[in-house]
Amino acid sequence: MIQLRVDLGQRTYPIMIGQDLLSHPQLFLPYLNSSHLMIVSNHTVAPLYLSKLQDCFPTLKQSLHLLPEGEQYKNVDAVMAIITTMLQQHCDRKTTLLALGGGVVGDIAGFAAASYQRGITFIQIPTTLLSQVDSSVGGKTGVNHPLGKNMVGAFHQPAAVIVDIDTLDTLPRRELVSGLAEVIKYGLINDYDFFCWLEDHIDALLARDHAALVTAIERSCSNKARIVAQDEREQGCRALLNLGHSFGHAIEAGLGYGNWLHGEAISAGICLAARLSCAQGWLDRQQVTRICGLLKKTGLPVRMPKELSAQRILALMSNDKKVACGRLRLVLFHSIGDCFVSSDFDYKKMQDCLGQPPG
Amino acid sequence: MIQLRVDLGQRTYPIMIGQDLLSHPQLFLPYLNSSHLMIVSNHTVAPLYLSKLQDCFPTLKQSLHLLPEGEQYKNVDAVMAIITTMLQQHCDRKTTLLALGGGVVGDIAGFAAASYQRGITFIQIPTTLLSQVDSSVGGKTGVNHPLGKNMVGAFHQPAAVIVDIDTLDTLPRRELVSGLAEVIKYGLINDYDFFCWLEDHIDALLARDHAALVTAIERSCSNKARIVAQDEREQGCRALLNLGHSFGHAIEAGLGYGNWLHGEAISAGICLAARLSCAQGWLDRQQVTRICGLLKKTGLPVRMPKELSAQRILALMSNDKKVACGRLRLVLFHSIGDCFVSSDFDYKKMQDCLGQPPG
Repeated sequence: MIQLRVDLGQRTYPIMIGQDLLSHPQLFLPYLNSSHLMIVSNHTVAPLYLSKLQDCFPTLKQSLHLLPEGEQYKNVDAVMAIITTMLQQHCDRKTTLLALGGGVVGDIAGFAAASYQRGITFIQIPTTLLSQVDSSVGGKTGVNHPLGKNMVGAFHQPAAVIVDIDTLDTLPRRELVSGLAEVIKYGLINDYDFFCWLEDHIDALLARDHAALVTAIERSCSNKARIVAQDEREQGCRALLNLGHSFGHAIEAGLGYGNWLHGEAISAGICLAARLSCAQGWLDRQQVTRICGLLKKTGLPVRMPKELSAQRILALMSNDKKVACGRLRLVLFHSIGDCFVSSDFDYKKMQDCLGQPPG
Repeated sequence: MIQLRVDLGQRTYPIMIGQDLLSHPQLFLPYLNSSHLMIVSNHTVAPLYLSKLQDCFPTLKQSLHLLPEGEQYKNVDAVMAIITTMLQQHCDRKTTLLALGGGVVGDIAGFAAASYQRGITFIQIPTTLLSQVDSSVGGKTGVNHPLGKNMVGAFHQPAAVIVDIDTLDTLPRRELVSGLAEVIKYGLINDYDFFCWLEDHIDALLARDHAALVTAIERSCSNKARIVAQDEREQGCRALLNLGHSFGHAIEAGLGYGNWLHGEAISAGICLAARLSCAQGWLDRQQVTRICGLLKKTGLPVRMPKELSAQRILALMSNDKKVACGRLRLVLFHSIGDCFVSSDFDYKKMQDCLGQPPG
């Protein structure tokens, strides 16, 4: 097992990465403050891994809430449903919540933990590649609003993140591919060596080679942990993690949550950021080809969905959290492994990139 | 104008208390991070004070959301309604939210500020005595759930609290009296001299004498600020502020939110805590008489509502946030000005006190 640490003073916590971790109660016990556990999962993950987790704690009272599957259910009603179950089960402030599932489960359950009686301890047990390398680390929790993604939420750090890579064996291929978009993102932001490693190992990752997966997850998480430790509440460099996300969120909202997977939308958004950076003269055209090439080889989209006009995307982006004082801020490229945040791009060039016919 | 400070490191903020503060934009300007303000108020307070506040900021973009009046509307739907308005008005992370109203407005708007895009700056402008001395200070925000009061929320400190006591001139008498329950609470917890002062000045307070009100508010807020600075997240001594609240919350939930005012329920709860402390042999009978005497003279109830049986109260209390590891924790008395938190009371004695016939 590999252990990383997210350094946040009093809120410092470990990320544990390895095989068969769900059968090891000693990984969880340090974070349980009472004899009552609340497990939140969904109807897809529970049949696969819930009993394994539950068997770890034969002497504890365990309450359970299962969420419906899918980003389209990531709303405040789901949060309130968890809270209702917790009240019915007499969970108190010492109860620890375990979030077993992908990013949607973690985001909803994390916000429920943040809000229940003004905040209780929770542990992230991410079961998808996307959540293992991204959403489970960093304390961003929250749900969507019909007018925008992740608009309602809290910063609430987990007490621990437990990544059992065995869970990836049952992950649908489309979800695996979607998760790889976020993995590739870390290489692009500021880890050129990792990007090169990914170019060499993309086939092994797609074949779910365990050693390759552990390396990719560890490298992604240590990149994220370093950035989050520097900037927990996204006042500065954490914004780099949003590479591709302004466009990506607009795609998800515009097509209706759940139609394109998050990583698919991010992939198209990354390619757009690369093309815009190139149009600005900041990024070499060859590097654009290399970026889009790796994403395409992974099986990810490299163009915006044709159903959405440039105008519609721009309207959706105007409500993005990354807008500050009326100016859209984007993560753009100097080169692979060297991204930066800017609002000093040419708006007309962005419109042009958005309006390009797919090809 | 009197200025107090709540010492919370990076989250330190001022409480300003005085007359005609709503006409002084310079009190607000240090806390505005952008040219866009979001004001949340309700249909009772807005006709009285909104235009005064709005006139302070003639050059800023101002968005507005009015809530329905009453504790019965303090729910998550109200929070989501504010967030919808904020998204429609293109509020961003730099927008400052101003909560103009009583405790219900502050609690709902504060939780909206905590949750909007994972947290924005907000200013409390409490317009009732209850909110001026209690709920606006300390960062507790949140809403009710049908199964319990304040069960969904966040700790989110305001950037400033601005108490304009002119707003008390229009406060209905029943609300003024309700607020005095929380004022008296501070004397009871650990400020015996203040309790004596209140015995001497209760008539002046009921007559809305401005000098007496300023003294009472200042003393209450400095008591609260000191306790909150020691224990922001209620891990220890902050629990003392819950004197009367376990019983009080059960009354509010049992009768339906809004039937008894918060201070009325707290008053009955304080008397019950005093009687239980006496039954335990911890508090002198004469002091019980003195406690209930001041509350009664103020015009507050000193008995539990006869509609609620002891059994019903106990059932409602089992979901209280102050339950930890299955044990109810109560704030009880050694003497006036010397309260303590305990779960070591005789449960049977509590049942007896709850079952006492009114008289």
